Order: sequence, then structure tokens, then C-alpha cells
Amino acid sequence: NFEGIHPTALIGDGVMLGRNVTVGPHTVIYDNVYIGDDSVIGAHVILGEPCADFYGADANYSNRILEIGSGARIRSGSVLYAGSSFGDGLETGHRVTIREGTRAGKNFRVGTLSDIQGHCHIGDYVRLHSNVHVGHKSRIGNFVWIFPYVVLTNDPHPPSEFQVGVNIEDFAVIATMSVILPGVSIGKDALVGAGSVVNRNVEAESVVVGNPAKKVATVRDIKSKKDGGSVYPWRYHFDRGMPWQGIGYDAWVQKNA
Amino acid sequence: NFEGIHPTALIGDGVMLGRNVTVGPHTVIYDNVYIGDDSVIGAHVILGEPCADFYGADANYSNRILEIGSGARIRSGSVLYAGSSFGDGLETGHRVTIREGTRAGKNFRVGTLSDIQGHCHIGDYVRLHSNVHVGHKSRIGNFVWIFPYVVLTNDPHPPSEFQVGVNIEDFAVIATMSVILPGVSIGKDALVGAGSVVNRNVEAESVVVGNPAKKVATVRDIKSKKDGGSVYPWRYHFDRGMPWQGIGYDAWVQKNA
Amino acid sequence: NFEGIHPTALIGDGVMLGRNVTVGPHTVIYDNVYIGDDSVIGAHVILGEPCADFYGADANYSNRILEIGSGARIRSGSVLYAGSSFGDGLETGHRVTIREGTRAGKNFRVGTLSDIQGHCHIGDYVRLHSNVHVGHKSRIGNFVWIFPYVVLTNDPHPPSEFQVGVNIEDFAVIATMSVILPGVSIGKDALVGAGSVVNRNVEAESVVVGNPAKKVATVRDIKSKKDGGSVYPWRYHFDRGMPWQGIGYDAWVQKNA
Ligand SMILES: CC(=O)SCCNC(=O)CCNC(=O)[C@H](O)C(C)(C)COP(=O)(O)OP(=O)(O)OC[C@H]1O[C@@H](n2cnc3c(N)ncnc32)[C@H](O)[C@@H]1OP(=O)(O)O
Ligand SMILES: CC(=O)SCCNC(=O)CCNC(=O)[C@H](O)C(C)(C)COP(=O)(O)OP(=O)(O)OC[C@H]1O[C@@H](n2cnc3c(N)ncnc32)[C@H](O)[C@@H]1OP(=O)(O)O
Ligand SMILES: CC(=O)SCCNC(=O)CCNC(=O)[C@H](O)C(C)(C)COP(=O)(O)OP(=O)(O)OC[C@H]1O[C@@H](n2cnc3c(N)ncnc32)[C@H](O)[C@@H]1OP(=O)(O)O
Repeated sequence: NFEGIHPTALIGDGVMLGRNVTVGPHTVIYDNVYIGDDSVIGAHVILGEPCADFYGADANYSNRILEIGSGARIRSGSVLYAGSSFGDGLETGHRVTIREGTRAGKNFRVGTLSDIQGHCHIGDYVRLHSNVHVGHKSRIGNFVWIFPYVVLTNDPHPPSEFQVGVNIEDFAVIATMSVILPGVSIGKDALVGAGSVVNRNVEAESVVVGNPAKKVATVRDIKSKKDGGSVYPWRYHFDRGMPWQGIGYDAWVQKNA
Repeated sequence: NFEGIHPTALIGDGVMLGRNVTVGPHTVIYDNVYIGDDSVIGAHVILGEPCADFYGADANYSNRILEIGSGARIRSGSVLYAGSSFGDGLETGHRVTIREGTRAGKNFRVGTLSDIQGHCHIGDYVRLHSNVHVGHKSRIGNFVWIFPYVVLTNDPHPPSEFQVGVNIEDFAVIATMSVILPGVSIGKDALVGAGSVVNRNVEAESVVVGNPAKKVATVRDIKSKKDGGSVYPWRYHFDRGMPWQGIGYDAWVQKNA
Repeated sequence: NFEGIHPTALIGDGVMLGRNVTVGPHTVIYDNVYIGDDSVIGAHVILGEPCADFYGADANYSNRILEIGSGARIRSGSVLYAGSSFGDGLETGHRVTIREGTRAGKNFRVGTLSDIQGHCHIGDYVRLHSNVHVGHKSRIGNFVWIFPYVVLTNDPHPPSEFQVGVNIEDFAVIATMSVILPGVSIGKDALVGAGSVVNRNVEAESVVVGNPAKKVATVRDIKSKKDGGSVYPWRYHFDRGMPWQGIGYDAWVQKNA
């Protein structure tokens, strides 16, 4: 079942490709990568990049499994390390880096140049826009949106041996260029405004802005710039690409109850 | 007229290369890309990357035209999508991403890792330094300078279906690590200081700094750190690479009047 | 002594590789690159990228030497220009860009997507995390740590012809998403907090935070989030990868006295 593989692509041992998988030119797939059906892998991609111990020239190194669900779209120049797993519907932009020990749920989308440092947990339907930096030990819930140049940190007083990841609850939104300091929790449905430096926990449905970030409103106070209506919690107002598309969030919840 | 094409480069159908075009190793040029005379395309470049509908596996997809003027220099690892056009003298750094629907004028320079999301208009002689993020629907005038890690946003309350781009007038300068919030206009000759979060329109010739950004001066108040002289509006004090190089801005305007 | 070179790699003239050097698939090594023993070069790397004058089509261009010490680990997609030199133990992440005129000491580590603009001096055991932007003319001492999305600037009133680099003293730490304005000095053992915009010199052992950054403490005031103990100056509390590993900083200094 090797179809649609460009002749310049290099495929290692123990690689398992599902039905109808396309692999672009100059792509390198190292050993023990599994890719589900109906996936498109772009050009200049590296899958199953060996972990750091290889670079340290461990003679007995055997590549850990990289597992990618069906329907994946991996755009050119991305590097996914060995030793991670992704549910169905993974979609990456260009030149994304995802290191070992990342566990992501289904329909994860991660934009161009984003950098996931590994050893983190990511739920279902998470959207990282371009150039998001996710530090080790981050925990990201379901249906979370994170915008460009956000950094999730982990070392409270670097350099040190103590790492404490951030925790982002379901439906939270982090606007562009914000930093979340180590160990901080962002509550369910909360909104971190653009350019914020968040050094305290943010309660559910709160809006915080500024450096350092302070609470200025609840999300229900924010009004649409288009028509003045409510816009948050966004799950009641937005459905593109979401499992409740066309039926509404409440109906979807009931259907699954 | 295929000269100077490296044997490992891959060239699609309907590609038109001008005279004296160099194409580097492992570069992929998809269908319907036009490149003007005297251009240098580096290694590992992708030109005419198919738009998202392709990834959605549209059987009838035919690649839209990507048009690049003469004298282009496209550095390694850059990805330019199908469906955009660039005037003469385009110069990119490494691993730039420019998506579909971008229309840029002549002498556009865009630095390493910059990410242009597409559907935006960019004038003549615009300079984006490294790692600038230009959101959909941005409008950038002529002779605008934008420095590293600046983000031009568009969704005022994400995620939503309402996008309103930013508008940057001629000769404006946006210093490093600033965010311009959706729909904001930056006036002619204005200066946004480093690290600003700009959530209100900025008047012509104003200097704004801070989070949120406030007006602290006019550009005429800023003095050179070298000799204490005036430095803004910069077009009267700087000419490298500009069409008024050697003759001065006013003389150039008169010549073209 | 060309061993472990992937057949798809391209090697220029005048390239000197030490013993036990591995070169990955699709990597391009231009003329006059020297690499020390026991080095691993990843896939899709470009070493000895010709300087800008080449793009300007100088017929007499001869590539300047790029010198890389022994034990290097250069990860995939990185581009190192001709005309720089690095001591032993260089380690890069993915898609790093390092331009001409960079001089770095030994055990330099530079993370994924970092962008060094060239013409700068970097000491020994410097750690740049992912996505750090080092402007021209920066001077970085020894044992300096810089975290993601930090920008070291140089043009105080851009665009201008006056560049004045920043100066970072030994053991200083710059936390994520901070901007250091042109000409600013960061003192020995100082700590710049996350998200700071630093427009004044920072004294040795000071902690500054905010936009614009203000001194809020000395590093000795900062306590461990783990056990309440001291954490700075970090060289007395952290040793992984440092030359005093296992023996402590003072013992190491004495040994070398
Ligand atoms: C491709 C892409 O576009 S990716 C980017 C996606 N979009 C974004 O990142 C932008 C998201 N929007 C934001 O971050 C906005 O700042 C929001 C939604 C948090 C707040 O916006 P609004 O509801 O319009 O707030 P509004 O402008 O009414 O401001 C209320 C107060 O908070 C301040 N404020 C608002 N946002 C910010 C901010 N990000 N930082 C600092 N202060 C802020 C305002 O100055 C105002 O204070 P004032 O009354 O003293 O003048
Ligand atoms: C490769 C590269 O270099 S890319 C980067 C290109 N260069 C840059 O991005 C830097 C551009 N320079 C700036 O952004 C500067 O901040 C400028 C030009 C806007 C202002 O600089 P100056 O005229 O020197 O301002 P000056 O230092 O006199 O400050 C005036 C006041 O504004 C404050 N201020 C100045 N700049 C900023 C800033 N960026 N953010 C917050 N406050 C600022 C100062 O603290 C001072 O306030 P005070 O009087 O209460 O202390
Ligand atoms: C993969 C990676 O993780 S890379 C990232 C590496 N790690 C980092 O970048 C984070 C480093 N840590 C920081 O930057 C921290 O802000 C520090 C160490 C500078 C200060 O942290 P602490 O000692 O915990 O400061 P503490 O929380 O007690 O704050 C003291 C005061 O300064 C303020 N403050 C602290 N840090 C900041 C900051 N970065 N920006 C603005 N204000 C701040 C606090 O709000 C508080 O003010 P208040 O008393 O008025 O409320």
C-alpha cells in the first residue's frame, strides 16, 4: 500500500502507511512511523525525527513509534519527532516542529512555524495558529484556540531543574503575543487579550489584558464589532470546523449525552 | 529558456521562466508559476504551493497562477502559494511563507520566517524584517517598514467569522514586537514603538508606545542617538534602496510630478 | 574522510570534513566549509550559504570560509552562511539561520527557528532557546541564557544608517518575549522578566519587568517556586551542561585559576 509516494521521498524501515497516502518530494520518513488512511504529506517534511539520544550517538537507538491518525495534512517543511501520537484529522502548516512525548487528540490543527517542545497533552479540536510556542509539560484541554506568538512557559526561574507547565482549560482563547507564566491556569471559556503577560491564574469566563495581566471584564461583556451582539462563550456563536457545525453546541451536547 | 536549473529541482507544467533564471537544488516549482528575467531562486524553495482546496483533494483542481516579476531573489526554504502576484525586485529571506491572494507592488522585501496569511494588499518598496506576521485582509501602503515579531491581526474577538484587517499608511514604521489590533489604522509617517499593543487608530506623524499604546510624541520630536539631529519623517533622512537614493525625497517627487 | 554522507547530499569544492561526520539527506554544503570531527549534520541543511553579494551576481565571488568546531549537531533545515566561525560543541535546533560575520565560542546552543543576523560576538556556553532574534552588532558574553521570542535590536530610530548593538554581560538571563532596545547593556547576573521592553541599562544582579521595564528586585530576592530556596545567581544552583557540572561553580573557578 505504498501509493502516491514521490520518487525522491525516503522511507525508513517499519513504516506503515494507510490507504491513499500521498508523500511529497524530498520528504524523509524515518523508521517506525505509522500514518492513517487518506493522508497528504507535503514536500521537505521529516517524520519520525530521532530523539536527542540519537544525536548523542547511542549505538542501540531504535526509533520510537510516531503515530498519526487518518486524514492527516502535513504541510511542507514540518518536522515531527519519533515518540508522539496524534488522533485523526491532524493538520499542520509549514515548518511546524513537534517534539517527542506529545499526545494530541483528534482534529488538532497547528499553524506554520509553531513549535511544540514535547511532553505535553493536547485535547481534541485544539487550534494553534502560526508561530505558537508550547513549552514542555503544557496541558491544553479541548477546543482551545491559541493565536500567533503566544508562549506557554514552564521554568519559573530559568535556568533551573524545576519545570511546571501551564494548564489551559476547555474553550479558552489566548490572543496573539501573550505569555503565560509557568504553572498558571487559564480557566474554561476565559479570554486572554493580545499582548498580555499572565502571571496569575485566570478564572473561567474572565477577560484579562495588559502587562502584567489584570481582569477587565467577563467574556459576556464583550460585544461584536460587527453587530453589537454577544460573541462569547464562543461555542454558542461559532461552529466552523467544530463537531456541532450546523446544529449548535447545545444540540451537539445533547446528542452525545 | 530553462537555464541554470539544478538537476534536483522539480519543475511543473505551465511554468514560464524568464531569461537568466537560476533555480537551486531540491526546489519544487508547481504548475503555472511565472518568474521574470534575472531571478535567483534558492534551495528547498516551493513555488506555486497548491491552495487548501487541493489538500481537500479536489479532483478538478488546477493550480492558480503565481506571478513573480523580474530580478527576484527568493532565499532557501521559502514557500509561495499559487494565486498571488509580486512586482519586480521581490526579495525574500529564508523560509518565508506567503499564501494565496497576496498582491504586492515592486521592490517588496520580506525577511526570514515572515508569514503572510494572504488576501492582503501591499504597496511598493515595503520592507518587512524577519518574522513579521501579516494577517488576512491587511492593507499596507508604500514605503512601510515593519520590524521583527510584529503581528497585524484581523479577528477582533476570536474565533469569529468577522475579520477586519489593519491599514498601514505610506511611510509608517512599526518597531519590533508590536501588535496592531483588528481594524486599526496607522497614519502616514507614524511610528509605533517597540513592544506596543495598539488598539486605537494612530494619527499621522504620531509616536505611540506601551501596552496599551499611548501617544507620547510626534515623530519630529525624536532626535538621532548619533548626532541629535532630526530623523523623522525618515524619507528626508534615509535613502538606501529607495527610488530617491542619491537625489533626496523632494527632488524625486518633483522628477515624477 | 567522507563517511556517512547521504547520497542525496551535495558537497561543494574546498569542503573539509573531519573524522566521523554524518551528513543527512538533501543537505547542501557550499564551497569552503570546514567541519570538525564527530559532527552530525541533519537533513535539508544548508552550510556556507553565499552572502548577499552573490545574490547581487558578483562574478568574482568566492565563498568565504565557514568554520564549525568538532562535536557539532546541526538539526534539519538550518542555514549557516559563509563567513562565520563556531567553537567546538555547536548545537542547533531546526531551521536556525545564522548569517555572516558571527563569531561564537564553544558549546553554543541555539534553538529551533532562532535568527542571528550576523556581525555579532557570542561567548562560550551561551544558550539561545527557540526563536530568538539577535540583531547585527549584538555582543553576548559567556553563560548567557535567552528564551523564546526575545529580540536584541540595533537601530534606535529605524530606518536609519546608525546601528548600536546591545551588550549582554556574563550569566545574564533574558526571559521570554522581551525586547532589548538598541545600545542597552544588561549587567552580569541580571534577570529580565518575561514580556519586558528594556529601554534603559540594567545593573548587575537586578531584576527588571514590565513595559517599559523597571527594577523590581535583585536576583537574590527571587525564591524557588519548588522549595523557597535561593535560585540566583543561577551559576551556584544549576550545572547541567556547564563546565562546573558535578563540582560546583566555585570549585571550577579555583581549578582554572
Ligand atoms: C490572524 C489573527 O488575526 S490572529 C489574532 C486574533 N485576534 C487577536 O489576537 C485580537 C483579540 N482581541 C483582543 O485581544 C482585545 O484586546 C479584547 C477582545 C481582549 C478586548 O477588546 P475590546 O472588547 O474591543 O476592548 P476595548 O477596546 O473596549 O477596551 C476596554 C479597555 O481595555 C483596554 N484593552 C483592551 N484590549 C487590550 C489589550 N489587548 N491590551 C491592553 N489593554 C487592552 C482598552 O484600552 C480599554 O481601556 P480604556 O477603557 O482605559 O481605554
Ligand atoms: C534588527 C533590528 O534592530 S529591528 C528593530 C528596529 N528598532 C526598534 O524596533 C527600536 C525602535 N525604537 C523604539 O521603539 C523607541 O522606543 C522609540 C524610537 C519609539 C522611542 O525612543 P526614544 O525617542 O529614545 O524615547 P525615550 O527613551 O527618550 O523615551 C521617552 C519616554 O517614552 C518611554 N518609552 C520609550 N520607548 C518606549 C517603548 N518602546 N515602550 C514603552 N515606553 C517607551 C520612555 O520610558 C520615556 O518615558 P519616561 O520619560 O517616563 O522615562
Ligand atoms: C520553555 C520555557 O519555559 S522558556 C521560558 C523561561 N521562563 C520564563 O520566561 C519565565 C521567567 N520568569 C519571570 O519572568 C518572572 O516574571 C520573574 C522570575 C521575573 C518574577 O517572578 P516572581 O519572583 O515569581 O515574581 P512575583 O510573581 O512574586 O511578582 C512580583 C511583582 O512583580 C510583578 N511581575 C512579576 N513578573 C512580571 C513580569 N514578567 N511582567 C510584569 N510584571 C511582573 C508581579 O505582578 C508582582 O507585582 P505585584 O506585587 O504588584 O502583584
